[in-house]
Amino acid sequence: MDRHLVISADCHAGLPPGGYRDYLDPQHRDAFDVALTQQLAITRDFEEHFLVKEINDDWRRGNEKDLCGAWDHDARIRVLDGDGIAGEVVFPDGITEMNAPPFGAGIGLSPRGANRELQWAGARSHNRWLAELVEMAPERREGVAIVPATWDVEEAVREVRWARGKGLGSIMIPVIWGDHAPYHHSVYRPLWAVCEELEVVIHFHSGPADSEQYFGSWPPDPGSEIPRGAMGIYVSEVAWWVARPLTFLIWGGVFEDFPKLKVAITEGTANWVPSYLELLDQRATAHAGNAKLGDYTSHLSLMPSEYFARNIRVATMVAPREAELRHEIGVGNLMWGSDYPHPEGTWPNTDSRMRDSLLDVPEPEAVAILGGNAADWYGFDAGKLAPLVARIGPEKRRFAR
Amino acid sequence: MDRHLVISADCHAGLPPGGYRDYLDPQHRDAFDVALTQQLAITRDFEEHFLVKEINDDWRRGNEKDLCGAWDHDARIRVLDGDGIAGEVVFPDGITEMNAPPFGAGIGLSPRGANRELQWAGARSHNRWLAELVEMAPERREGVAIVPATWDVEEAVREVRWARGKGLGSIMIPVIWGDHAPYHHSVYRPLWAVCEELEVVIHFHSGPADSEQYFGSWPPDPGSEIPRGAMGIYVSEVAWWVARPLTFLIWGGVFEDFPKLKVAITEGTANWVPSYLELLDQRATAHAGNAKLGDYTSHLSLMPSEYFARNIRVATMVAPREAELRHEIGVGNLMWGSDYPHPEGTWPNTDSRMRDSLLDVPEPEAVAILGGNAADWYGFDAGKLAPLVARIGPEKRRFAR
Repeated sequence: MDRHLVISADCHAGLPPGGYRDYLDPQHRDAFDVALTQQLAITRDFEEHFLVKEINDDWRRGNEKDLCGAWDHDARIRVLDGDGIAGEVVFPDGITEMNAPPFGAGIGLSPRGANRELQWAGARSHNRWLAELVEMAPERREGVAIVPATWDVEEAVREVRWARGKGLGSIMIPVIWGDHAPYHHSVYRPLWAVCEELEVVIHFHSGPADSEQYFGSWPPDPGSEIPRGAMGIYVSEVAWWVARPLTFLIWGGVFEDFPKLKVAITEGTANWVPSYLELLDQRATAHAGNAKLGDYTSHLSLMPSEYFARNIRVATMVAPREAELRHEIGVGNLMWGSDYPHPEGTWPNTDSRMRDSLLDVPEPEAVAILGGNAADWYGFDAGKLAPLVARIGPEKRRFAR
Repeated sequence: MDRHLVISADCHAGLPPGGYRDYLDPQHRDAFDVALTQQLAITRDFEEHFLVKEINDDWRRGNEKDLCGAWDHDARIRVLDGDGIAGEVVFPDGITEMNAPPFGAGIGLSPRGANRELQWAGARSHNRWLAELVEMAPERREGVAIVPATWDVEEAVREVRWARGKGLGSIMIPVIWGDHAPYHHSVYRPLWAVCEELEVVIHFHSGPADSEQYFGSWPPDPGSEIPRGAMGIYVSEVAWWVARPLTFLIWGGVFEDFPKLKVAITEGTANWVPSYLELLDQRATAHAGNAKLGDYTSHLSLMPSEYFARNIRVATMVAPREAELRHEIGVGNLMWGSDYPHPEGTWPNTDSRMRDSLLDVPEPEAVAILGGNAADWYGFDAGKLAPLVARIGPEKRRFAR
């Protein structure tokens, strides 16, 4: 094979504003109509607050035909074919903040400030639509169902079973649990059990952070002054918050008890992985200095970094620095993603950005990072995709100096 | 000079339980009597919860005479002389949790669950006693006054002026601000201004973290089951929480506006520094990928790592790995500390632990790390200490292979 099987482990899809109405249970449609107006106002306020309206408008202008791949099957196939991407993992949220599922059930999924019944309803409306989208090209699409699990674990278990039945083999759960139980708590065991049983991959997708702390309130109050530095703090902390659940899962013994459980951290960069693993392993071994804190390791048979290697993957755009760190991250743990259709994603410069990052990476490692790891992890059928790859995949020789 | 000037940038002192009563304003003594009983019960519950009573008892047994240096001047001088330590920076808290100032005004300083008036009163009782302790050997002791600044910045400014007047040139403020304003908020400007003006060093000392999240409640409820993994999560996150204020200060432009402000992170390890600086600098430069987030850098004239190099120091026991990373941390930014009289500290094995870490460090760098950096930062008078160093300082040739 002289072309790369490319799987984007980070893509987004969502309906245009208003589109989710038909996918909602009828009793929530009145609330939807009210929330829609608010959501559009919040998006507009956000853009104005940060003076980025122009940038976002520029990004959308001229790209309308391709960006509507956020919800349109044909456009999406055309764009992904053009990018050489044979398979994709499909998260919610479309063109920036324009295509989020209702009731806070999108990428920023968090119980904070949300209504339990409505957030579940919003999640289900997206999941129903997503199942239809995946069904149009099931061999190319791994759909990520939204599961606001912190509200109710039994409900989450039911949603996982429903999703698997509809062809969705992945879920995302909240990065931020607010006042709910953190992920080392035993209340979540039924969720880990069903995901292990049905081979459903659990995702934490970057986006949420401790934003109320940075901005004074979240979303920013249109009338209030945003403290200087808020956005710099956000971009500096956001990767910590998305990786934070791992600390709770690893120490909580979740991967000890559910050794086949799969967890992915998506769009949270991978630069943090080496120092994170060094820290956790150091904490697990240099226990003597902490003797006064009691025993906190005997329930784990592996080192934290060993659980990471076995149970965790990270999906990023693979910036040059991440490619450089690939051995410390784990070549088998790193999955490339384009982030289409977000403006910070690689599209429409996927080819050059891929080359910038992977030009010094030996071919077998590039094969793993660009698609092999994701194919194994999500169970894409490489054989079925082979004819497509032969047609659209980037030529391997383009990645050799 | 053939001996090292050693300054421990992390030591602790505190009165025995009950001792703070006489230093409290009289109107708070009834509350103190009640709180004392509770505090002793909490300490006992904590030890029993984590099955470490035996370890702590072992540590104290046989060491009573030396550990009472936590509050006794003569014993303290004897122990520090024995360790070769000429100067020290004195934080609250003594032998583990046994000598904390009242009303949560110790190392765990946080507004969470505390009473404003009482916490200020507890802080002042310690500061008054500490000023007496420092006065007994002012050339050897830099006292760290407790300033629970998040409650009231004007009050904090007054306390800083009082402390400086009493010979205390350092303060510690809360690592965790709870529901109060984070440190990028303009409300703190008068505090940064007075500390810059009076050359008072601001400290964040390791200890507090998001403990309610790990343990279910903090302190752990004696009746409740602690979730498995809680302590592992604590030891993995605690260094992040103590360094977190830097992210708010740097992006908030505090070091831009107060270029001579001095901040130290104490006992929070230094392993995190290289990846932390890489992250912040990356965020400050790779802004194009985040164009949709607006301008968040133009108020800063330096790179985050440049503010770090100029305005920030880290004090640790300098484990071998930290010594190895010294150039990435900044040789001039690293200050050695013994953590006496904590059981995880270097005493009574200071000599061998120092050698383990510094044997491969060239002498001029060891000079800086063991005492030179702290002498400059805190303004210790090396000349005045020279005769003492000639008598008690560790011989430099012992640190050469």
